[in-house]
Amino acid sequence: MKLCEMNHDELLSHKKQWEEEYDKFKALDLKLNMARGKPSPEQLALTTDMLDILNSKSDLTGINGDDYRNYGILDGIPEAKTMFADLLEVSADEVMIFGNSSLNIMYDVVSLSYTNGINGCLPWCRLDKVKFLCPVPGYDRHFTICESLGIEMVNIPYTDNGPDMDMIEKMVSEDESIKGVWCVPQYSNPSGIVYSDETVKRFAALKPKAKDFRIFWDNAYCVHHLVDEPKLILNIIDECKKAGNENMVYVFASTSKITFPGSGVAALASSAGNLKEIAKIMEARTIGHDKLNQLRHVKYFKTAEGIKEHMKKHQVILAPKFSIVIEKLEKEIAPLGIGSWVNPKGGYFISFDSVPGCAKRIVSLCREAGVTLTGAGATYPYGKDPEDKNIRIAPSYPSVEELSQAMDIFCLSIKIASAEKLLEN
Amino acid sequence: MKLCEMNHDELLSHKKQWEEEYDKFKALDLKLNMARGKPSPEQLALTTDMLDILNSKSDLTGINGDDYRNYGILDGIPEAKTMFADLLEVSADEVMIFGNSSLNIMYDVVSLSYTNGINGCLPWCRLDKVKFLCPVPGYDRHFTICESLGIEMVNIPYTDNGPDMDMIEKMVSEDESIKGVWCVPQYSNPSGIVYSDETVKRFAALKPKAKDFRIFWDNAYCVHHLVDEPKLILNIIDECKKAGNENMVYVFASTSKITFPGSGVAALASSAGNLKEIAKIMEARTIGHDKLNQLRHVKYFKTAEGIKEHMKKHQVILAPKFSIVIEKLEKEIAPLGIGSWVNPKGGYFISFDSVPGCAKRIVSLCREAGVTLTGAGATYPYGKDPEDKNIRIAPSYPSVEELSQAMDIFCLSIKIASAEKLLEN
Repeated sequence: MKLCEMNHDELLSHKKQWEEEYDKFKALDLKLNMARGKPSPEQLALTTDMLDILNSKSDLTGINGDDYRNYGILDGIPEAKTMFADLLEVSADEVMIFGNSSLNIMYDVVSLSYTNGINGCLPWCRLDKVKFLCPVPGYDRHFTICESLGIEMVNIPYTDNGPDMDMIEKMVSEDESIKGVWCVPQYSNPSGIVYSDETVKRFAALKPKAKDFRIFWDNAYCVHHLVDEPKLILNIIDECKKAGNENMVYVFASTSKITFPGSGVAALASSAGNLKEIAKIMEARTIGHDKLNQLRHVKYFKTAEGIKEHMKKHQVILAPKFSIVIEKLEKEIAPLGIGSWVNPKGGYFISFDSVPGCAKRIVSLCREAGVTLTGAGATYPYGKDPEDKNIRIAPSYPSVEELSQAMDIFCLSIKIASAEKLLEN
Repeated sequence: MKLCEMNHDELLSHKKQWEEEYDKFKALDLKLNMARGKPSPEQLALTTDMLDILNSKSDLTGINGDDYRNYGILDGIPEAKTMFADLLEVSADEVMIFGNSSLNIMYDVVSLSYTNGINGCLPWCRLDKVKFLCPVPGYDRHFTICESLGIEMVNIPYTDNGPDMDMIEKMVSEDESIKGVWCVPQYSNPSGIVYSDETVKRFAALKPKAKDFRIFWDNAYCVHHLVDEPKLILNIIDECKKAGNENMVYVFASTSKITFPGSGVAALASSAGNLKEIAKIMEARTIGHDKLNQLRHVKYFKTAEGIKEHMKKHQVILAPKFSIVIEKLEKEIAPLGIGSWVNPKGGYFISFDSVPGCAKRIVSLCREAGVTLTGAGATYPYGKDPEDKNIRIAPSYPSVEELSQAMDIFCLSIKIASAEKLLEN
């Protein structure tokens, strides 16, 4: 029976019963965390032997004769360029390899557009207003970059095929102050949506009014599948070329969730022209990134194929955790009709939408019972979820047992918060 | 006999003889490089066994129980903070450990002042004019940071005790648009000067008009000595506290020339308040830096004392190279009175001043004979040496044999260029 079909007394008695169960969990004084997309120790153990790859006997000289212990090579070692170019299906001159974080590259690319300007346009800091389009729910750290630089964020709703392209096409073609759009095309963070071919083609064919408009294509989960036959997105760089927009997109990727979150390598793929422009400005900030760590990664995986093979081991660890979340939601929440979610085929998150006005309450109920979730609202710019309903679930870090317990508490919190909301009316 | 005392015919005959010797070298078609402060392969070999320190058997858990393979700890692992705090003689809450490059930290600190502003002041990008004081000759990459962000650079001459403090005190106290000064206090790049205690105290006691004025104290060569009993600079952070200016200085250091130039770790030391402000803004650009590499460095050196001990091995390799440069200059150039230089007690460079108007010519003569030097002018803002006389010599990279040959060519180039100049008049 759906919660909304219950009468006042039925609601009260159910609520009372759920609160009793909830109090039992609370008494256990648990500490469970589903807040961030952190790989589990079990996943990190998969690549710990990468630390054996480079040692004092290793050949640390590159294919061009460069000593990778020394200075230089701002754009990354050629061996790593080849591997990432294959992974991202671009040519080696369309990729640069940087340090340990793609977030860092995203910030730097936005920041240098802000301080120096790109494509012959004024630096964004000289403009009265700069706007980014933000498909929501989205990734909080993308929004933080914009907020940190005073870039105004505009919410764009999602469809099952990706962001609302009608809205995006209209806005970028009319408003010159719109300089960017954030995308996580393969398994959106948090909704897990995979952009349809049509969506990718429409992105590639955008006719922006701003000459310095760029698509920030965060391909964080390009090889992070939970199923054997994943649906893959189209190659945005190819599509942009076909549409005569070869300079319109930046593609970001990293090994943070492939090897080590703190000690991976990150890549930027874009047109050779864009990379040249970025490198020119980046020369002021560094002589080069950690080439030994780049070499360590190449010697370990050897090829892009090696990375893809390796990711199957992550799938084996992660898929059961996602299943627990989905099963609990289907068993406990679906019958009551008090929430919706998508069952993602990859990535790191499950996006849960509660009855409007309940998300904050659910998160605080969970917190009181020892379950930490990403703060309600975090998936929206400025932390403002207009309907207070979206919650991002990150199942990767806890053990299967912890996760199962955390989901019991989460489901009870949903039930209690929903009942409270209905009783208000 | 000094060159300036020679008559026309003497000059011509000497010049002819030098050109013959020069042509003999030219015929050898050499490729020698004294351009950048690059450690030699022999130096890099000193720490290559650091790659054996971390392996799959290592304990990768920190003293606070953090898994250093995973995300987090923006300000650096506590073990590394302790080691660098000891090295820089500050407390652990006055230091942050970042990625592989202190240049990168310098750029980021300038950049975030430019984009976000510090100490409650307007972001520098909102101001009509921002100026930095640049003691000259100085480090070209400092100047590039300013140039990249449109910060106007003002030349400040050096005395034997450091920059001209009368000039600096007057300018910073009168001009609110002056937001920073670049310093390399221990073995200035390139002049090798060590700031006197009085100079450090006067820096610490500056009364800047701008609330967001900062001293950018690049302590790149803090442990890079060429003698056994080095003269050390005063601790600027202590002196700033004594003078009630605890927030006025940022201190930068790295292991780029201690372990691996591309794969070291860098540190920022400043007041806890400044570090908090910087971390807050940096949160937008990264979750954290490479903690495994930080751990690798701590496990290898164990303590600050361990780093200092290790640097004696670099001294053994570098000191003879500096001696060759000084000996050649004293033997070939001093008697002719066509140049001046200081004999540095540490650091990576020797600064040579030619007869005014000869530096560009000397560098190009060297280039034609296969010897690459840092471009003439590079040691001045905008690449403009007003007297065209300063040349930075970097003796670290070439072998002793190569260096000796390169210096022969350098000295011949000085002689020829000086003779040409005198013959003009």
